[in-house]
Amino acid sequence: MKLNADLGESYGHWQFDADSDIMPYIDMANVACGGHAGDPTVMHKTIELAAEHNVLIGAHPSYPDLQGFGRRSMRVPPNELMLIIQAQMATLDGLAKCQGKEVSYVKPHGALYNDMMADKAVRNVVFSAVSGFYCNLPLVVQASTENETLRIEARERDITLIFEAFSDRLYLDSGLLTPRSHPRAVLNANDAVEQARRLIQRNEVITESGAILPIFADTICVHGDTPEAMHTVKKIRELLQ
Amino acid sequence: MKLNADLGESYGHWQFDADSDIMPYIDMANVACGGHAGDPTVMHKTIELAAEHNVLIGAHPSYPDLQGFGRRSMRVPPNELMLIIQAQMATLDGLAKCQGKEVSYVKPHGALYNDMMADKAVRNVVFSAVSGFYCNLPLVVQASTENETLRIEARERDITLIFEAFSDRLYLDSGLLTPRSHPRAVLNANDAVEQARRLIQRNEVITESGAILPIFADTICVHGDTPEAMHTVKKIRELLQ
Amino acid sequence: MKLNADLGESYGHWQFDADSDIMPYIDMANVACGGHAGDPTVMHKTIELAAEHNVLIGAHPSYPDLQGFGRRSMRVPPNELMLIIQAQMATLDGLAKCQGKEVSYVKPHGALYNDMMADKAVRNVVFSAVSGFYCNLPLVVQASTENETLRIEARERDITLIFEAFSDRLYLDSGLLTPRSHPRAVLNANDAVEQARRLIQRNEVITESGAILPIFADTICVHGDTPEAMHTVKKIRELLQ
Amino acid sequence: MKLNADLGESYGHWQFDADSDIMPYIDMANVACGGHAGDPTVMHKTIELAAEHNVLIGAHPSYPDLQGFGRRSMRVPPNELMLIIQAQMATLDGLAKCQGKEVSYVKPHGALYNDMMADKAVRNVVFSAVSGFYCNLPLVVQASTENETLRIEARERDITLIFEAFSDRLYLDSGLLTPRSHPRAVLNANDAVEQARRLIQRNEVITESGAILPIFADTICVHGDTPEAMHTVKKIRELLQ
Repeated sequence: MKLNADLGESYGHWQFDADSDIMPYIDMANVACGGHAGDPTVMHKTIELAAEHNVLIGAHPSYPDLQGFGRRSMRVPPNELMLIIQAQMATLDGLAKCQGKEVSYVKPHGALYNDMMADKAVRNVVFSAVSGFYCNLPLVVQASTENETLRIEARERDITLIFEAFSDRLYLDSGLLTPRSHPRAVLNANDAVEQARRLIQRNEVITESGAILPIFADTICVHGDTPEAMHTVKKIRELLQ
Repeated sequence: MKLNADLGESYGHWQFDADSDIMPYIDMANVACGGHAGDPTVMHKTIELAAEHNVLIGAHPSYPDLQGFGRRSMRVPPNELMLIIQAQMATLDGLAKCQGKEVSYVKPHGALYNDMMADKAVRNVVFSAVSGFYCNLPLVVQASTENETLRIEARERDITLIFEAFSDRLYLDSGLLTPRSHPRAVLNANDAVEQARRLIQRNEVITESGAILPIFADTICVHGDTPEAMHTVKKIRELLQ
Repeated sequence: MKLNADLGESYGHWQFDADSDIMPYIDMANVACGGHAGDPTVMHKTIELAAEHNVLIGAHPSYPDLQGFGRRSMRVPPNELMLIIQAQMATLDGLAKCQGKEVSYVKPHGALYNDMMADKAVRNVVFSAVSGFYCNLPLVVQASTENETLRIEARERDITLIFEAFSDRLYLDSGLLTPRSHPRAVLNANDAVEQARRLIQRNEVITESGAILPIFADTICVHGDTPEAMHTVKKIRELLQ
Repeated sequence: MKLNADLGESYGHWQFDADSDIMPYIDMANVACGGHAGDPTVMHKTIELAAEHNVLIGAHPSYPDLQGFGRRSMRVPPNELMLIIQAQMATLDGLAKCQGKEVSYVKPHGALYNDMMADKAVRNVVFSAVSGFYCNLPLVVQASTENETLRIEARERDITLIFEAFSDRLYLDSGLLTPRSHPRAVLNANDAVEQARRLIQRNEVITESGAILPIFADTICVHGDTPEAMHTVKKIRELLQ
């Protein structure tokens, strides 16, 4: 089980400094590539930091929307969206290559990730972007009870999937996450560590209704933007050792 | 002697359609990479069009300024500017690679080009961007009486230079161009063809004062945005055959 | 019956020059205010041109999306969207005031206009933006068989509506426009003039199925971006005299 | 003597929360208006916060450069720059009017402020923007030994100046600030309070060389982005009571 986190989400003068705190505890860094965050200097520094800690560098493309931080769904024509995604992947991979590194996988960000999971048309666009990219990169998607269906869809496009689960989000019986508006949508530190333990040891979560839901994941998404979140990350890292 | 032109300078809804007119007559297409123009769809189409006509694809990076079309000089810290240039080169090269093509050279755009020629500090930044890029690309600079000085500067950084002259701009005795505010700054079609003939056949231009100035160039920059400009391009192409 | 047109849709280097052609023939200029087009210089010039021709200046706010020209629907939180619309209205009105002019009405642009007509939640946001603005401005909406319903909704917010019909778009029986993907979605010049005549003289259109649909409109939207469109505008203007 | 601070410098997801800490201690809030920071939601909240504390709202326009936070000098044609400044002033003033408030003064930001002080051509542009604005607003400039010269320049344009001094920056004998690259450019908390005391009580500062320089200021610029800066602000506020 790998730990992944969204990083490099500063922009210009607006610097988030938590990246260096969490980097030692994760395996995969999803690096913003200019769509929702990340100017060239931020990308460069994040690549450097990931490389220092032997963390895999992932492209984290987004709808093109700095003001909305990639969290506002946009209806973009498929071919344009495909090229928008590839351009972001190319920018990050090129800057990495200038540092002797390279991008190892792709994970869509925010609204693009959600739309990819909920809407087959958007998923097709993401698949086209990844399968048409100039090198072969696995794609991170959300683990659910539909893993096998997605795997088949992806295999037809010669795409390898990496299934991701969330330690700090409450699941519905459907395998989707409770929306952020739900009072218990985000788990506290203890519950997040407990959910991670279940995911790691039993491939399951306890849903909002109390049911047990099987979730087979390759990686868990963690956050490092608060002291509490950092505490959770360290605990989960201990579980894995 | 090669002909080069600045292309792919549309953006979103704002489409310049002259690219397909001029492409058959040139050897090198300087393709905007998002700094002053060129969204991913525009880049993709321009790469495709260049490839159809066996025209070399060049990255045409700029200060990051869509509103000013890269024509406003900006004082950007050196390391940030270097990464801004590399990011644009990477974006275009990556999109080209997705189409089985690649970028073959670099030519800075607008104010960045002018600053590179006039200010050694900016030139150093451009040289760093090019020499630190993940593949070896020659750099287009303005041909002048200082070619040899520039060539030595560039050789120290392992950069190959391509020297460019202008067919439709009036030269000063200093080898610089007369500023656009000068009444005769831009030559008419006949004079432009005549200047191209001199550049091609004699490696020289007649300056604003009537003097003869030696200019050794590898490529001539042409434009295709008006019927008159297209007429000039065709005439210069005939000269070369 | 007033004629309105979308103008000021240039940006930086990308100039559309048709504005001065159509301005003498219209009554209301919907001026882009930076959301989908229109930098401060473009706004200033368009205001000046409208004033010269005694044409009313309307704010033409949009989702914030230059690359997509405001044609991509975006899911923006209501309060943010309201402020985005007001900020655009304020920018245009302020620049107009610097020229001794002022904004006289509001017409949302592109996807925001469509979403306003199709989705009551978005319409509420637009209504809040208009009713909460610092001066009382009427709002342009699409005329349909639902005029009365909209009028009641608007009256509760103290908003005056201006109903708009389209001369060059084919209507469905429902009163909506046929989508642009439909082969006959955009009428040719003759049919557009004929549809304008019916709108003006009989308050009706012939729909895609051949039925007669009553449409009570205060204004007709026209375009001036092609010679054919300009021909249509002039013919419609003649009808009105 | 009034205290002023640069506020509203968040953007989208990137939130700086120090504004509410410093607001109770200042008299004038220089509010970013979208040039270097400040989307409509940020502007709205900052206006609201200032109004709650009876703090004057100032427009804080900038070169249009979010990525560079307005700190990169840009060579923008005078008439375009004038309209860029007016558009930002209009946006903020319009949003304030929607809340029943209004903008009371103007203070250029970052590189635009520096260029205004160092380059008469840029100062003329700023003066044109302010004198051509639709209401009469005083302009904040840096206090120096040249106050009288500036006052005469401004009076010709019917502009009232507000002279500003810096508590936490070391002055040169020339009255300019030591560049940020200087090791003592930024004063520590104690020295900043001491410099403020001298400014308030004696209209003078001790320069880098140890000389006494007369500085007549109407307002002191303070910052609230660190605990130490907040400590300084509180101490200076005590001095004033």
